[in-house]
Amino acid sequence: MSVEPPFLLCLGDSKDRRLAKTARGVLDWAPERCLGQLRWTADALDLGLPDMSVEQAVAAGARTLVVGVAPIGGRFGEDWRAQLLAALDAGLDIASGLHQRLNADPVLSAKARERGCRMHDLREPPADLPIAKGVARSGRRVLTVGTDCAVGKKYTALAIWRELRARGADADFCATGQTGVLISGRGFAVDAVISDFIAGAGEVLAPAAAADHWDVVEGQGSLFHPAYAGVTLGLLHGAQPEAIVLCHEIGRDEISFYPGFKTPSYAEAIARYVEAGRLTSPALYCAGVSLNTVDLTPDAAAREIDRVQRMLDLPVIDPIRTGAAAIVDRLLGAK
Amino acid sequence: MSVEPPFLLCLGDSKDRRLAKTARGVLDWAPERCLGQLRWTADALDLGLPDMSVEQAVAAGARTLVVGVAPIGGRFGEDWRAQLLAALDAGLDIASGLHQRLNADPVLSAKARERGCRMHDLREPPADLPIAKGVARSGRRVLTVGTDCAVGKKYTALAIWRELRARGADADFCATGQTGVLISGRGFAVDAVISDFIAGAGEVLAPAAAADHWDVVEGQGSLFHPAYAGVTLGLLHGAQPEAIVLCHEIGRDEISFYPGFKTPSYAEAIARYVEAGRLTSPALYCAGVSLNTVDLTPDAAAREIDRVQRMLDLPVIDPIRTGAAAIVDRLLGAK
Repeated sequence: MSVEPPFLLCLGDSKDRRLAKTARGVLDWAPERCLGQLRWTADALDLGLPDMSVEQAVAAGARTLVVGVAPIGGRFGEDWRAQLLAALDAGLDIASGLHQRLNADPVLSAKARERGCRMHDLREPPADLPIAKGVARSGRRVLTVGTDCAVGKKYTALAIWRELRARGADADFCATGQTGVLISGRGFAVDAVISDFIAGAGEVLAPAAAADHWDVVEGQGSLFHPAYAGVTLGLLHGAQPEAIVLCHEIGRDEISFYPGFKTPSYAEAIARYVEAGRLTSPALYCAGVSLNTVDLTPDAAAREIDRVQRMLDLPVIDPIRTGAAAIVDRLLGAK
Repeated sequence: MSVEPPFLLCLGDSKDRRLAKTARGVLDWAPERCLGQLRWTADALDLGLPDMSVEQAVAAGARTLVVGVAPIGGRFGEDWRAQLLAALDAGLDIASGLHQRLNADPVLSAKARERGCRMHDLREPPADLPIAKGVARSGRRVLTVGTDCAVGKKYTALAIWRELRARGADADFCATGQTGVLISGRGFAVDAVISDFIAGAGEVLAPAAAADHWDVVEGQGSLFHPAYAGVTLGLLHGAQPEAIVLCHEIGRDEISFYPGFKTPSYAEAIARYVEAGRLTSPALYCAGVSLNTVDLTPDAAAREIDRVQRMLDLPVIDPIRTGAAAIVDRLLGAK
């Protein structure tokens, strides 16, 4: 899966920032891949990119229209289909992480063939994934794990990857979700993989590598999530990390949308992830905790980071506020 | 998924009993569904059923040809296709648990349409599975879990189900693999489900029921298996059992085909399954241990069952040698 930049981020007529997670994630972490934004209405969400029509974007060098928002229900209607047809007509590839597959739409498929354009369904995993082998492999790997979904696992992995690179390490970010794939240009959505192959997918996403090469793997779901723990465990076993980094959002006391399911304590979460992961990585350890302190003032965030650090005697970061240096120190000092 | 009996079990030219797991499982547990066997060569495996051609089977009332053996590689060749075409021509439905889908074969599909026959791909899960809700639901559920794959989880679940029925309880066997589906006539293969929906599949397979209704759920994989633990955990969370029964084969000290991966002790396995399952079933407990003692003499098996029972202070059975009465006593005594 290789999606060609530069991108035209399509926001449609969406007014809800929460539905534009993909577009915002790509813009935050790969701004050099983002050329402009396409909005159909003047009151649609504005990410601050130049507004462009598909024709203007093509003239400026854009290669791929990225579906940057999730229509309600995860499906696109006639308005979207018309715009996507126009993009193909103008010569753009299309990338989408919606459940509804571009390539299953006969009208879009015919147009893409006619124009020689590619349509990337980012939720479509490779067809030839193997059953996991479980054999120890070379290279260094770190996986972000969470107390819940959507607590900052992707941002934490990206921050660790950037910091490793900044220090001259040979490091890759291994995307396991659609936004990560658009940021890094490789990977696939592991939660779309057939269950039998979930650990095999982890082995493919972070394969054997040179002894000093780092793969920083974006975690998915949470071992404490009543719907997604199977994905989390399979990825943990397949990724075979030497270290995990636990991610948590301050104030997230319950699993989102699952009232009554409490998020675990830091100590319990670390113990359970390490216990489970040691099946395929016997020396697995926790290299630190990454806090999402978005709802705190800077002072309160600093106090909370300090408090958790003293309590656990582990490096604690907020990838946005502090960067990942403290955790990378621990990772690089571990061998 | 409803596969119409009676069945003609197709053994092809297979000579290997191990490749006939499906046919043997159906014959062991649902002999009343099995009318005859179809073999192409005189030296093929003989399950002791009457040999029948498809025409003879139809004349005797057969409704479905069951692909009872796994061809090497999980795919069928021209010899199989010719025989399956002949079965459709004679008016039989076909059921197959192979990875290769009957319904993806244009020749077979065209013939099935022409003859008005159904082709059941037992590994194809329902298209509309939900994301798990995690909400506590009514009814009583017990799940078999294993130290490894293929240690007796299906047989144990079937034995518990039969014993519950024999005592007048309202009980269903909930199949989660292809052989179980053929035995019970319902369910689907959970390891073929997209990872995001694995716990949701467990909720669908064993749905809310009357307060005194039992669902006996066939477990899959093992929490200690480097490739399949994600399936196991998702099913455990979705099934939401009040009790688990741990299954183990005596002598299975390593995970099959995964050298170096030791099977856990009884105590460790029980502790880890109960810990993991309490996420969605807070009062989860272990109702006993089921041993596969096939490689022991009757005396040695009896001694081992007694030894494990004393060590763990839990009911211990071998579903073939002792039946499931001791575990059902515990289940029925629990409330």
